[in-house]
Amino acid sequence: MSPVVSVEKACAAAQLAAPVLARMSPSQRADLLVVLADALDEARDQLVPIAMTESHLPQLRLSGEVGRASGQLRLMAATIREGSYLGVVIDPADPTTTPPRPDLRRMQTPLGPVAVFAASNFPFAFSVLGNDTASALAAGCSVVVKPNPGHPRLSATVMAVAQQALSGAGAPSGMLTMIDTDVQAGIDLVNDDRINAVAFTGSQQGGLALAAIAAQRPRPVPFFGELGSINPIIVTAAALAERRDEIATGFIGSFTLGAGQFCTKPGVLIVPRDQELHDLLAAQLDEAAGQSMLTDAIQKAFVAGVTERMNIDAVEVIHVGQTDPDTREVTPTLLSVSASHVSDHPALLDECFGPMAMLVEYDTDEQLTHLLDELPGVLAAGVQAQGDEPQLPRLLDRLASLAGRVLFNEWPTGVAVTWAMQHGGPFPASTRPDTTSVGSFAIDRFLRPVAWQSIPDALLPVALQEANPWKLPRRVDSFRSGDDGG
Amino acid sequence: MSPVVSVEKACAAAQLAAPVLARMSPSQRADLLVVLADALDEARDQLVPIAMTESHLPQLRLSGEVGRASGQLRLMAATIREGSYLGVVIDPADPTTTPPRPDLRRMQTPLGPVAVFAASNFPFAFSVLGNDTASALAAGCSVVVKPNPGHPRLSATVMAVAQQALSGAGAPSGMLTMIDTDVQAGIDLVNDDRINAVAFTGSQQGGLALAAIAAQRPRPVPFFGELGSINPIIVTAAALAERRDEIATGFIGSFTLGAGQFCTKPGVLIVPRDQELHDLLAAQLDEAAGQSMLTDAIQKAFVAGVTERMNIDAVEVIHVGQTDPDTREVTPTLLSVSASHVSDHPALLDECFGPMAMLVEYDTDEQLTHLLDELPGVLAAGVQAQGDEPQLPRLLDRLASLAGRVLFNEWPTGVAVTWAMQHGGPFPASTRPDTTSVGSFAIDRFLRPVAWQSIPDALLPVALQEANPWKLPRRVDSFRSGDDGG
Repeated sequence: MSPVVSVEKACAAAQLAAPVLARMSPSQRADLLVVLADALDEARDQLVPIAMTESHLPQLRLSGEVGRASGQLRLMAATIREGSYLGVVIDPADPTTTPPRPDLRRMQTPLGPVAVFAASNFPFAFSVLGNDTASALAAGCSVVVKPNPGHPRLSATVMAVAQQALSGAGAPSGMLTMIDTDVQAGIDLVNDDRINAVAFTGSQQGGLALAAIAAQRPRPVPFFGELGSINPIIVTAAALAERRDEIATGFIGSFTLGAGQFCTKPGVLIVPRDQELHDLLAAQLDEAAGQSMLTDAIQKAFVAGVTERMNIDAVEVIHVGQTDPDTREVTPTLLSVSASHVSDHPALLDECFGPMAMLVEYDTDEQLTHLLDELPGVLAAGVQAQGDEPQLPRLLDRLASLAGRVLFNEWPTGVAVTWAMQHGGPFPASTRPDTTSVGSFAIDRFLRPVAWQSIPDALLPVALQEANPWKLPRRVDSFRSGDDGG
Repeated sequence: MSPVVSVEKACAAAQLAAPVLARMSPSQRADLLVVLADALDEARDQLVPIAMTESHLPQLRLSGEVGRASGQLRLMAATIREGSYLGVVIDPADPTTTPPRPDLRRMQTPLGPVAVFAASNFPFAFSVLGNDTASALAAGCSVVVKPNPGHPRLSATVMAVAQQALSGAGAPSGMLTMIDTDVQAGIDLVNDDRINAVAFTGSQQGGLALAAIAAQRPRPVPFFGELGSINPIIVTAAALAERRDEIATGFIGSFTLGAGQFCTKPGVLIVPRDQELHDLLAAQLDEAAGQSMLTDAIQKAFVAGVTERMNIDAVEVIHVGQTDPDTREVTPTLLSVSASHVSDHPALLDECFGPMAMLVEYDTDEQLTHLLDELPGVLAAGVQAQGDEPQLPRLLDRLASLAGRVLFNEWPTGVAVTWAMQHGGPFPASTRPDTTSVGSFAIDRFLRPVAWQSIPDALLPVALQEANPWKLPRRVDSFRSGDDGG
């Protein structure tokens, strides 16, 4: 039996399951997340070959990604067991204030059924059982997955594994369902009044179209879209002089990793004009092996993006890659442009998904300063510098205002799945830069605070009851302890 | 000199001030908030008479509201001194994981200049120095205020008081500025690329128009709009039988308070059909004194809203109020409708700003259940019940899914300014139900997380440095301590 159901069936089931999930204790839901993690790990040998066929990604990468996906499910389990995600705050009644203060108890509550649009470039970690699904389930929301058309068979198989595991654990059916891959099904899903939030990882065009639908519904709902990002890295003159080889190798390794199909690819290297660096990069790229792209459509868009940029007069070619449409194989391309020409060609600061990057070359500090004002919002940005350069504090401050993550002498690919990760950034990197789609705080997207006022203890949600039966971390009576609380 | 400046001047000044504010320690910004609170309290005798003339609100109310506004500034000062609003999370590097985990340090950062649209109904607490301004400044954002046209002279006077106090304390000019009251100035402000977020309290129509502008900018920004809310209170048969008089008196007191010009007015009382209650309410409303409304436009809209509802056949009049256009005085109106007729007239579930309310009468539990499915999102909702009624847990659960705040045997007007308050709710109550506009957590609206990766200690923001110079509460190495962290 295929796990694919109609939008109507999926939403109806999700609606029924939502209150059941919401009423579970965090520890009960954590158990279900661990059941999913175990099932995913156990099915690795069955799943990886299907993923290889559909995505053309290598076995080692896919096998590791299964571990990342199950690790994300386990981190979410740990996050809700710890309990501070609920944000429980209790201000007891105080009859001595004017006016008398009532008993107020605030905590985060799940939004209800949510839609998750799977990404193409992480068939496990940002797909059916990826972090959007993990964090929504952890929050206590049921999930309807819109699978990515790039790996339909893998999606169906993962969903079957997941549903069997959940059913074995006695979870409510409808906790996790999946609709068809086609575009209209996705649109219908976002338009369905039973859906209360949408998480999306993908292209800027597709994301903005769905975001508009979510905003224009009779009852608008939040749209958490992770869209394009160029993740610029700034190289200082001192760093270039000191570490030219290391920077060239690190940059190529990062922008060509996974055929450049990462949202954190360093698409732009901002660097002092330097012929030696050109030669070094060109020589290394001559040796680069071909890598398969995820889908024909992605390969086509990549070739179009590279061609468009090469046709700009101001753009110089450092290395031009090869494309084999039969195997979806490509080799990397590297272009360069003078910082002073970027403002005439803002498209050069758009993401180009695939193994392509752009050097943006500056001659003076003024050029660098102007360029920084033109950069769009990004997921990550960084510097390659020597530690004692006097302009660094200002430069890092500026990057923090543009980015969700700031790096020092590291490359942006590779996103640690931890509490302190921030994966999101000012528009267009994300439609909701106040949120993250990786790490523990990804759960916040699917929660909304409610305050209970003067409710008898027995009628309060368990998490708010005076005896604290779930042993949650709680903030009690902060008001009274504030120095200036008036 | 008038404190009103052009949108261009205000945004340019706010842009210059923003990084200065962002770099201050929380304690330095807290000092400035207390300076503002003190200045407001000291100017009370100068400000209240101006507010009385412009708003027609009584002296006692306005004088108390000055205290609420200064109290909000002090609570925000206490909130940032306490420091957990920064959400500092530190995951130290771990070379033993695969791949090795880098040092990651995450915290909330200010968004930059924000626009605050002042409300008509709280000339102090939701206006120039209201909680939107207080929480944005606390976050480290500069603020451009769009004053409410209902009290222009008060707004200019409060702004002059604020600017003098800030200047005396050495604050950056541009930290807090004000533009003209006219609509076009407000639109230009939301469209200005230097503005990074908009806070708005007002009508649904005005709010949605501005929200669309904020969403359609080349660089969209968050719009925190608090729009209309009917704040339904459900009365059970047992409570009505037991406490009819008390409920009638409490309901009238709450929906007529401040001439019904509160966002938390209980606009709908959902109650078993009961002639005795009609008679009791009608008799009490006969005695109700006239109260002035805030502006001519608000009075006009109120009269139109009442008339529209009275013209619906299914609506019965319990008490019809009087209107004096010369004095802006009105007396309360109370209507009733059968629960079974509401679905034919969804406008009955829209907010009508002013001293008007609607009984929605049910005969059976099925009618009540159906009605609950038709209620829109609200700021607050509650029950009047006896403690041991078996349907209460389900009923309170349902209300929590609709509302930002749930009440038991209390009335929604009166919003405590504390850490545990939640003032916001599902659409249309708020455009961002995940946020609050009252209480300590109002600050979250103006913050965005950033993660710093592998940055040398001396180059980190002070709040993230290893030595913790500001003595902030921090979450360190949660990842390692998680049971299931994989």
